[in-house]
Order: sequence, then structure tokens, then C-alpha cells
Amino acid sequence: MNARSIDLNSDLGEGFGRWTLGDDQEMLGIVTSANVACGFHAGDPRAIRSTVRGAADAGVAIGAHVGYRDLAGFGRRNIDVASDDLVADVIYQIGALQALAAAEGTSVSYVKPHGALYNTIVHDERQAADVVEAVRLVDPSLVLLGMPGSAVLRLATEAGIPTAIEAFADRAYTPQGTLVSRREPGAVLHDVDEVAKRMVRLATEGLLEAIDGSTLELRPDSICVHGDSPGATDMARQVRLALTEAGVDLRPFAPAPAAVRAPGS
Amino acid sequence: MNARSIDLNSDLGEGFGRWTLGDDQEMLGIVTSANVACGFHAGDPRAIRSTVRGAADAGVAIGAHVGYRDLAGFGRRNIDVASDDLVADVIYQIGALQALAAAEGTSVSYVKPHGALYNTIVHDERQAADVVEAVRLVDPSLVLLGMPGSAVLRLATEAGIPTAIEAFADRAYTPQGTLVSRREPGAVLHDVDEVAKRMVRLATEGLLEAIDGSTLELRPDSICVHGDSPGATDMARQVRLALTEAGVDLRPFAPAPAAVRAPGS
Amino acid sequence: MNARSIDLNSDLGEGFGRWTLGDDQEMLGIVTSANVACGFHAGDPRAIRSTVRGAADAGVAIGAHVGYRDLAGFGRRNIDVASDDLVADVIYQIGALQALAAAEGTSVSYVKPHGALYNTIVHDERQAADVVEAVRLVDPSLVLLGMPGSAVLRLATEAGIPTAIEAFADRAYTPQGTLVSRREPGAVLHDVDEVAKRMVRLATEGLLEAIDGSTLELRPDSICVHGDSPGATDMARQVRLALTEAGVDLRPFAPAPAAVRAPGS
Amino acid sequence: MNARSIDLNSDLGEGFGRWTLGDDQEMLGIVTSANVACGFHAGDPRAIRSTVRGAADAGVAIGAHVGYRDLAGFGRRNIDVASDDLVADVIYQIGALQALAAAEGTSVSYVKPHGALYNTIVHDERQAADVVEAVRLVDPSLVLLGMPGSAVLRLATEAGIPTAIEAFADRAYTPQGTLVSRREPGAVLHDVDEVAKRMVRLATEGLLEAIDGSTLELRPDSICVHGDSPGATDMARQVRLALTEAGVDLRPFAPAPAAVRAPGS
Repeated sequence: MNARSIDLNSDLGEGFGRWTLGDDQEMLGIVTSANVACGFHAGDPRAIRSTVRGAADAGVAIGAHVGYRDLAGFGRRNIDVASDDLVADVIYQIGALQALAAAEGTSVSYVKPHGALYNTIVHDERQAADVVEAVRLVDPSLVLLGMPGSAVLRLATEAGIPTAIEAFADRAYTPQGTLVSRREPGAVLHDVDEVAKRMVRLATEGLLEAIDGSTLELRPDSICVHGDSPGATDMARQVRLALTEAGVDLRPFAPAPAAVRAPGS
Repeated sequence: MNARSIDLNSDLGEGFGRWTLGDDQEMLGIVTSANVACGFHAGDPRAIRSTVRGAADAGVAIGAHVGYRDLAGFGRRNIDVASDDLVADVIYQIGALQALAAAEGTSVSYVKPHGALYNTIVHDERQAADVVEAVRLVDPSLVLLGMPGSAVLRLATEAGIPTAIEAFADRAYTPQGTLVSRREPGAVLHDVDEVAKRMVRLATEGLLEAIDGSTLELRPDSICVHGDSPGATDMARQVRLALTEAGVDLRPFAPAPAAVRAPGS
Repeated sequence: MNARSIDLNSDLGEGFGRWTLGDDQEMLGIVTSANVACGFHAGDPRAIRSTVRGAADAGVAIGAHVGYRDLAGFGRRNIDVASDDLVADVIYQIGALQALAAAEGTSVSYVKPHGALYNTIVHDERQAADVVEAVRLVDPSLVLLGMPGSAVLRLATEAGIPTAIEAFADRAYTPQGTLVSRREPGAVLHDVDEVAKRMVRLATEGLLEAIDGSTLELRPDSICVHGDSPGATDMARQVRLALTEAGVDLRPFAPAPAAVRAPGS
Repeated sequence: MNARSIDLNSDLGEGFGRWTLGDDQEMLGIVTSANVACGFHAGDPRAIRSTVRGAADAGVAIGAHVGYRDLAGFGRRNIDVASDDLVADVIYQIGALQALAAAEGTSVSYVKPHGALYNTIVHDERQAADVVEAVRLVDPSLVLLGMPGSAVLRLATEAGIPTAIEAFADRAYTPQGTLVSRREPGAVLHDVDEVAKRMVRLATEGLLEAIDGSTLELRPDSICVHGDSPGATDMARQVRLALTEAGVDLRPFAPAPAAVRAPGS
């Protein structure tokens, strides 16, 4: 990580058919990396394609936001998927997104697991290994984006897959550097100014105040912001503005392909 | 078409989770091209991957058997999918299969639409154009396999996409070279010997007797056989045997990638 | 129809899991009948139950908004479902809603097909007969709500099933009393005052001006309003207000069960 | 339990669209209770209706085999469904089956959770309470069928819901009366004669030999047999034959409605 540059990532392409969620076009003007749903927890192919096109036009890097097969639960429910299934499910989702990206003259740069899968592979060695195996089989040059200290990033590194770590703009941290559980008071930060200041300090000094007042050292490659509500979009914009004003360069941690148009677009 | 060589294709990978359909391993010893379900009408990722691995091991060419999103109807019901959706749905399915093929060190050589989509794009110009557009955007070197005289193959040719035509081993033909509707008596042939003889004549002479006794001239690149019942598998095997005994070389119409193992397999 | 009373119906319960659509609580304060999605085109069981509870609390009648099995297409795509499937699909959806209604101490009063199914059974005799058969098998005292002159209502009447007819608040009509196609200019009315005035005239005089300026005679039991956008909700509220001010009594065409609480609620 | 009578139950209706599983018609000649899939882990409405009709004709009692929403995993994967969802999901499934049963002039007598849900609510108090709540809200006279000593049956009893307990014909038991894990050797019994003898002893004496040779006392209301393979069907038939020859009366633990034809059947 370059202390004076950082990436902003957000979950996009999360509609499904008639249903929309968030404002992808607005967020594509704020973030530098888009975690694009791949159809298992959200994302119908038309919506995915539209988001990918927007990302290409905006020079935003595209990540495969792979999740459990659970539209009704939005991929937020733990499912004990067998390894044979999980490896294949992740390959399937990455491939589907790759083709939609190729159709828009762009490509997928990284993989960020979604929701319950993201949380599970922080500690579950078996499912973490399955995700790493899937990425390795599809394209071992894809970057895996995740939590510092997670099983999945350790296993990715061991498998020769590049990794990137992220911090969450609106979440409180324990003194150990993990997220305060959403069940605890103060777990989610709502004060836009406070969040923006914290992210500037993090990007410029690599320091973040934990919930007990102690100071954490973190060197994230990316900051995760949300866009699924008007308030969330405001916070994301303020974080970006504060970082820019502090002289932090916003750019993808993974190479964003040039917005080259496909032959038929 | 080389009159002394022909391809045999069949629909494989048509299970879903707990449910299986046909015997893929047996059929992979008979056919030279496998139309592999891509998850929309059938095919969960684990089953698809297993079928793709078997095809790679057997030197069988892999085609994307893309269909309507309709698991409950097995892709056999007409759905008036809008173009934005259909193009993206087909891209998505091809890409998912491509990644699973890549994970097994092989690749997708062709595209054969499935079921109601297959039948619709024989005559429906709009949906035919959508499928052609999808193939063109993913990879215009993929071969489109379909019915001679169909709208989709004409449009593919106009778009510079290679095409291949197929005949159906167990179906009766009208004097015009179209299939006799399943609602008519005699539409489906059940006599294994008769079918085998017809296919030998077709492969060696390019001639096929129509239901009225007249003679059709056809030069198919491939013959479609079924494997979804023990009787169907027997017929497929007899067709293969008869062709081989008649000196017809059985080989994929599309290049079958060598069964190169992926790094992690 | 009593010329001085009318029903207002709207489509509710149209979320799915993480995705919401419209504001059901607001619409339950405006309409007298709720067409509740049953899970095939929209509506997860938790959301359905919540909508049903709200309807019971508000004294709003509950209708089964049955549709094709097509979450990705929101039930708006024509699907040529075989009769065995369509009959069973409709029974299944009605039964699921009935149980969720029973759990909230209320019940289903009527059936209104949704989207493409609604449009198809205006003219398609076979699918219309399937829907009628399903309603007859579940409970022939359920009212079928539909378009005047439609095949489904004629067949329902022949089968002894009560029917109700509806008019669409924001749609232009042909001189023949059918809807002007959405592809034609002027098909959808956006002027809230105009719509409110038209509905008052319709409810009080049974007259509606067609797109060519001629006058139609219509005696709808119900007026369909929309709630899937803030603008739509405003129009619905204005229609209700204008009707009330004109002395029209707003009440369900079908008996709304009292909001009796189930034992465990 | 009457020591000289017992029920035989099996999972039926487990196809989905094109896919079939087991031979329902054959099993309906063997068992006295049919656990019918309700669409979430298996069972499309047409297939469910067909199975329900067969059960009605054969005088076989009908149970709602409710499961997690997971077609790809056949309901065999643990999913941490929130209570609001699980209660509504179970209500929805029971209601759908009730309507299909009513359409065939019969009704649902009991509820047996399926697969991972079945196993989870043996010990998970929260999900067990959710299932009990759902049954209570739909119809508290429905019998809950499950494992002796399970959380779900204890909570059902506390809620005033009748319960029934079952034994598994082809499974080995621990000395504590629980099933030997499938991961252990000897967990599944394959010897048809041995299984038949064990079930006769169980039905006539209430005794079952555990895997360590010790003797368990069990008084099951029902014995669960399988029908998803030809071998499984053979075993089910032999168990029935042996019980009958031993003078054990085979009859549903729950009242089987008479096979009254619905008006339109």
C-alpha cells in the first residue's frame, strides 16, 4: 500500500429483475472499485452487464462479488455448502461475470466474496480453501480482497494468489483489529464527518481509533463504502471528498482495464 | 462437411443438485460433442464441472447448451424474453461454462441453444439476433450449431460467426426438410436398426428418406442423439457402431481441446 | 355494482427478500383490496405475511395475485405453461397465501392473476380455463377479478365462480373498451387531476371517455391503482380523495374478513 | 403407540419438473404415510398434486415435508434462516400442500420437517420453536412427526400440538438411542433381512439392538423407509411384508382422510 493512495470499493449490481438496490450510476462516480454481484445472491445478467458497462466507462475496476446461492436471503445466511459445490459455484459466478465484462470490452480484476460467505471464510479454513481453489483454477492473477488476518487471505497467499485488504468506513473496530459485532452498541458509525476524518487518518497515517480509544495500525489497500441508501451514498461521497482534499490519490488497488469498447457495443 | 466423417452430439450435464438425468459417463464414450447445460434450464455448477472434466478426458468437444431461465420447465417452455435480457442471459451462461471448462484445462468450442429457445430461433428473427449478438460479444470464433435453414444460422453467418448444422437421428423429416411435429404420428423413430441405417446413409451419401417416401439431400456436420434413458443410450451406441462399421470417421465438427489438466486438478 | 360505492385495488407484497417495491403500509391506508403476490413472480413468505397482517389490521380485503413462476421477469413475460402445470401452480400459490392469511386470523377473498398471466387469459381460452379450474378446485366461492369481456371471467361465470370487473385508473381506453396498448402514445395517463375526475365520473355515472373522445359505459366493481413509485402513490391517494368527496363509498367488492387475531399473534 | 400396529412413512413427491426421484406409485402401495415435498427443497406443484392424488387413492396419510428453500442442495444444507423467515416459509409450504390436497378431495394430516431442517431442530431450540409456531398458526391439530427426545417435539407438546415419533429402518442406533453418524462405519444397514427382523422386533416388542449390542427400548409410531432407489424400494417392501406376516397392523399414525374426490376431479 502506498500511504498516499487508496481504493474505494462498494457493492454494486445488486438488483434482480424488477428490483433495484442502490444507485449504481451515482456510486460509479465515487468509488474506484465495484464489487459486482454475480447472480447467486443478487444480480440478473442484464443488470450486471449494465453495471459492468458503467464501470468500464468510469474507469472503475471490476470485482466478482461471489456469494452463496440464496436470492431469498441475499447471500447473508450461512450455508454449509460442500466443497465440490462451493468451488464450482465460485468458478461459475466468476466466469459469468468475466463474459459479461468481456462483452463490454473490459475484464474482472479481483474477487471479493459477499455476505455470509465473506464472514465465514475469515475463519472457516475449509470454505476459505474452496474459494482460493476456485480463484486459482479460473485465473490465479485475480486479486482476492478481504479482511486482514483472515483465513482466506492467508491461504490465497500460500497459493500464490495476490491479495488486498480492506477497512470498513462505517464500522467500529475492536482493539484486536476485528469488527465490533453488529449486535454491540456503537458497531455502526453514522456520523459522516467522523467517518470521513477516520478514513483520512487511516489513509494518510495508517492509524485508526478502536472502540476502546486505543489506536490500531492498519494499512488497507481499499476502503469499503456503501451505496444502498441515500444516506449511505452521502457518506461515500464525503469520504471521497475528504480523502481527495487531504491529498490522497484515489485509485483501484487492482488494475482497472481501459474502457475499450467491445466490437459490437 | 466431409462425407466420410461426422460428429455425434448429445445433451449432457442435465442434472441439478440431487437430481440426475441420463448417464453422462456412458454418453461421453459414444459422442464426439457434448452440449453441456449451463445452469438456466439444468446443470448445477458441480455437475457441469464433472461433465466437462469427463468430456476433456474423453476428447469430446464442449458446447454451451444455453437455455431460457426455467428450471421448473427444463427450458422447454416458450418465454418472450426481452432482448436486453436474452443477450445477457446467453453471455452469462457461456461465460459460466467457459470458466468451468478452463478450470479443467479445456474450453468451450461451440454453442447450441436448448429446448424452446432452440425451436424459437429457427424462425423468430428477434430472438435469433439476440443469441447471435451474445455469441459475437463473448467470442465470435465459437461455432453456432443449429437447424439448416434456421434464422439463427443465417444471422450468424451474416455476423461472421461459423455455423454447423445437425440432423436428428430419431426424428422423421417432412419433404421440406423440417422435423415432423411431435404431435403427428411417426414423428419419433423407435427402431434402432432403422435409425442406424438412416444415419449411415445420411453420413455416407447425404441422403435421408422423408416421411412421405421422398428423398432429402442433407449434409449435416453433426447428428444429434439422446442419452436420457437406457433405450436412448442403446440407440446412440448403435448409431455410432453402424457409422464406424461403414467407415465413417467420428470426430467433432468443432476443435476439441486436448485434455490438458489445469494446474490444480 | 352499486353506482355509489366502489373498490380500490392495488398490487402489494411485491418485494422479495432484501428487495422492496412500493410502500405497502401507505397503500393499505388508501385501497380497500390488496392483490398480494404469492411467491412466483414476487413475494417471499415473510413479506407476504407482513402485508397480510397489515391488510387485516386495515380492514382491506386480500386477493391472491397469482402469476407465472418467473422471479427474474417479475411475471411479466409470457410463458406457455402446460395446463397440468398451470392449474397446480395456481392452486399452490393460493394455498400458500391462504395459510399465511390464516396465520394472521384473516383469509383470502379473491383471486387476481398478475402480469403476463392476467393479459394472456383475457383471450387465451386454454390458460383461462386452467386458472378457473384451479380456483374451482381450491374454493369456488373465491371471486375472480379481471377485465370485462375477458375469457377468464366468462369461463368463471360458466363454472359458477363469482366474478368482479375492474377499470384501470391511469390507462386510456379504446372505443371498444379495451386498454390502449402501452406502445401507443397517450396509453398511460399522468395527470393526477384528470385521472381523479375520470374515476369520479366512472364511479358515479358509469361513464368513461375513450381515447377518441367517445363515451364508454362501464360498471366496474373495482378501480386498479398503483403504488410502486411515489408518484403512483400520490395518484392513488388523489383518486381516493376525489371519490370520497364525491360521496362514493369505498369498500371491498369481496367481503373483507374482520381483523381477528390468530391465537399466536 | 399400540404395540401391534405401526405406520410406515417415506419421502415422496421429490421430483422437480423434468427430474424424477424414486417411484411414488410403487411406494404408495407400501407405506401408510407419505411425506410430500412442498416445493422448497423439491416438488413442483404438478408433481405434488399427482403424488397427493395417488396418496388419496391409496388411503395413505399425507404429511407436509417442509424444508429449507434450497433446490440446489435438496434441503440438505444447514441454513441459518431467521425466525421471521422460517416461520413464514413453513406456513407457506404447508398451505401450498393443503390446497393441492384439497383440490384432490383430501387433506394434510401431519408435518415432518425435511433434511437439514429435520436434523437442526433435534437440538436447535430457536429453529425448533419456529417450526412449532408455524404449525400452531396454520392448524394446531396437525401432528408433528420427528425424533424421540428432540427439541421440536418437546416444544410441540408444550404448545399443545400432537406429536408422533419415528424410527429409521436402515440406520444403526447408539446406546443412547440416537442415530449413528453417517460418517461412522456401520451407520447404514444394507441387509434387507436383518432390517426386516429388526423392525418386526421393534414393532412387536418395542426393542431395538444398538450398535454396541445393548438393547434399546423404543415405541415409535412410525418407521421411516426409503424409496429413492430400486434397492431402497425392495427393502421397504420386505419390511412391510415381514411386519404383516408378524401380525402387525400397518396403518397411519395420523388419520388418513377418505379418498373423496373433489368436485372437479
